Amino acid sequence: MNIRFYNARILTMEDNKPIFEGEVWVSNEKIIYVGDGKDMDEFYRQRNLTCMIWDEEINCDKNVLMPGFKNAHTHSGMTLLRSFADDLPLHEWLNKQVFPVEAKMTEEDIYHLTKLAVLEYLTSGITAIFDMYLTPESVAKACMDTGMRCVLTGAVNDFSQSVEAMEKWYGELNGIDPLISFLPGFHAEYTCSKKLMEDIASLAQRLKAPVYVHLAETKAEVEGCMERYGTTPGMFLDSLGMFEHGGGAYHCVYLTEKEVALFKKKQISVITNPGSNMKLASGIAPISDFLKAGLNIAIGTDGPASNNCLDMFREMFLVTGLAKLREKDASAVDAMDVLKMATVNGAKAMCLENADVLAQDKLADIIMIDLFKPNMQPINNIAKNIVYSGSKQNIKMTMIHGHILYRDGEFCLKDEPRDIYEKANAIINRLR
Amino acid sequence: MNIRFYNARILTMEDNKPIFEGEVWVSNEKIIYVGDGKDMDEFYRQRNLTCMIWDEEINCDKNVLMPGFKNAHTHSGMTLLRSFADDLPLHEWLNKQVFPVEAKMTEEDIYHLTKLAVLEYLTSGITAIFDMYLTPESVAKACMDTGMRCVLTGAVNDFSQSVEAMEKWYGELNGIDPLISFLPGFHAEYTCSKKLMEDIASLAQRLKAPVYVHLAETKAEVEGCMERYGTTPGMFLDSLGMFEHGGGAYHCVYLTEKEVALFKKKQISVITNPGSNMKLASGIAPISDFLKAGLNIAIGTDGPASNNCLDMFREMFLVTGLAKLREKDASAVDAMDVLKMATVNGAKAMCLENADVLAQDKLADIIMIDLFKPNMQPINNIAKNIVYSGSKQNIKMTMIHGHILYRDGEFCLKDEPRDIYEKANAIINRLR
Repeated sequence: MNIRFYNARILTMEDNKPIFEGEVWVSNEKIIYVGDGKDMDEFYRQRNLTCMIWDEEINCDKNVLMPGFKNAHTHSGMTLLRSFADDLPLHEWLNKQVFPVEAKMTEEDIYHLTKLAVLEYLTSGITAIFDMYLTPESVAKACMDTGMRCVLTGAVNDFSQSVEAMEKWYGELNGIDPLISFLPGFHAEYTCSKKLMEDIASLAQRLKAPVYVHLAETKAEVEGCMERYGTTPGMFLDSLGMFEHGGGAYHCVYLTEKEVALFKKKQISVITNPGSNMKLASGIAPISDFLKAGLNIAIGTDGPASNNCLDMFREMFLVTGLAKLREKDASAVDAMDVLKMATVNGAKAMCLENADVLAQDKLADIIMIDLFKPNMQPINNIAKNIVYSGSKQNIKMTMIHGHILYRDGEFCLKDEPRDIYEKANAIINRLR
Repeated sequence: MNIRFYNARILTMEDNKPIFEGEVWVSNEKIIYVGDGKDMDEFYRQRNLTCMIWDEEINCDKNVLMPGFKNAHTHSGMTLLRSFADDLPLHEWLNKQVFPVEAKMTEEDIYHLTKLAVLEYLTSGITAIFDMYLTPESVAKACMDTGMRCVLTGAVNDFSQSVEAMEKWYGELNGIDPLISFLPGFHAEYTCSKKLMEDIASLAQRLKAPVYVHLAETKAEVEGCMERYGTTPGMFLDSLGMFEHGGGAYHCVYLTEKEVALFKKKQISVITNPGSNMKLASGIAPISDFLKAGLNIAIGTDGPASNNCLDMFREMFLVTGLAKLREKDASAVDAMDVLKMATVNGAKAMCLENADVLAQDKLADIIMIDLFKPNMQPINNIAKNIVYSGSKQNIKMTMIHGHILYRDGEFCLKDEPRDIYEKANAIINRLR
């Protein structure tokens, strides 16, 4: 499929490149041209072409094209537990409500529940997810069947999954489909034995792969690690050789200065989850400190049981808003920094550098932001409008891997949304 | 116009009334029936009717009908300055960016800019606003011309408006249109002389009217008042006899215990503005304390220059999310309490008790929440879904005073949205 977008405002998210008016051309899964549309002769000459045959030409009507958002931490299958039990203390919520239901979920349940999450990702301009959940294979299948780009990671802990399973997934899921990849990961220091974590570190070293993990989400977690190992979780995991090939840490609310320096040195990404940290009363991550230290900061929604939505607009506003509150400084964390976290930095954290910006030869993971909605007017500053005022309402189109999957409020999928909703309701009614 | 809504889930927002399936009937500006649809004979008998002639019968398809949201504090005309200057310290933002442009705005500018705000209110299910701005008459006209319910209040201070003007508006705007009312108000203690505030208190006593004011928004404001008058703003204003007939205070981030007791005694509403308090780094209001004290808590977006959107879904999530963070307690401020703030309590704060719940003889200010969007599924708990996961995307219909003004993403107004956007852009380009 060859698709031409014209009459667009283009925010490529390349460093220091201002928004300009022009065209984006897509051929199959790739972007083949981004520019003002005045250098076409050169384009054709280089390719020995006289013209392009378009399957579709889309007038963007001066709306914005930009790279899709990367949701760098989620548990898609937890749509089941959205609003199932809120307004409870964290411990009670997890042990009495979440875990007992999760224990009864089947692979097929997770397949359908992930599809429900995919629908929501598309409405929020999310073109790639970093998913950690019980059954990576069924999550992968749901993403392949809907067209969502998905990086999977392990959720290994003392009670589920294993290093062997993870090695198998690493071999089988990498290469199964251009949309799918798998990276080593485990649940958290506090749910794994030292032996298990040592084995995970060995595997990562053998595979020369980065490792991803929930880290420093709550004060209690850090204190527990101090008691168990006499140091903080980041330092402890590093002492096991966990991050020899980098990786990433979800949450990072209570990262120490020493850990910030470690993250910089070992190229470990911070993946912040402000909505979840807020709703579960975990705290506010020190984003300004991370920025100053030059860390790679990405953004994730976390799962819908703890958020409860999968909305990058809400997360983006919270990243800067909570930083402003924390620092008591209205100038903390500029909107453009937040947009970078939601796109380029997310891609880096997820090893998706081929889908980070709008440029020739990058993967065609593109969204169109509708400026002709009241919350985007007047057009004083488009980046600030997106971060401070944007909402799902402004997603006019979501394209992944060259396929338009959502457009003008309608899904372009094999499944009917109503069927997916029905499945989700049937599952919770069965497991409740 | 007689409109019948059927096949709906109904959340009346009356105390302790669970959601039920049924019908809502609207005749002209009023609700004439709310129920399960099984007591129609009784309805007709009481009215000596054999049937109703419907102008429209709307199948709600099991979506939710509930009272529209009350945006209990806003400055609609400030749409002009949305994303005009963000990420700046508060003082620099106000003095170097906001005030110089505002000084050049005409009444006609504010008329058009208010219309832009109204479009956004409708997309967010807001059916009434409490507006404080420079020119109440042109704000009222914009609301009358679009069909928005609007309670206006004065923004009197040492530099603009006056007690005389306010008395005139009180006389003229109350009664000008069923959609419009006016209540006394002034900008803030720190922008008014003691003499001016004494005169405002006298006027309020003479009119037997409540008074509304920005109060305890920042720590610096409270400290300034302590220096000037030896007490906090709430206590000081009360000592002038300001609240003999109640009223309300916007922001209330730094309210003291004594002031909380005063608010309870004098029936002064707290109107919280979490998005603005966050973006301007003002702080987090102690909502849990207010709840414990039994205060009437309403929610406002504040103006779009400091928020930057006019979205009650975002505000509702922030009310509870920030309370959870502040109290370090995930169980702080239940979703149902938040929904009450956004509807019934807002109506009370704005003296709109005739539009607070869905019940016979109440004004027909009704919204339909679309449950068949992925962020609302599965349907574990509708109230929690709305507060924790809801977005503008879920507003399927907004009805004010019996008129449907927004439906399935389209506005039903005389003005074309594009014309309103063009006007707003022309104004900022002229004044910049």
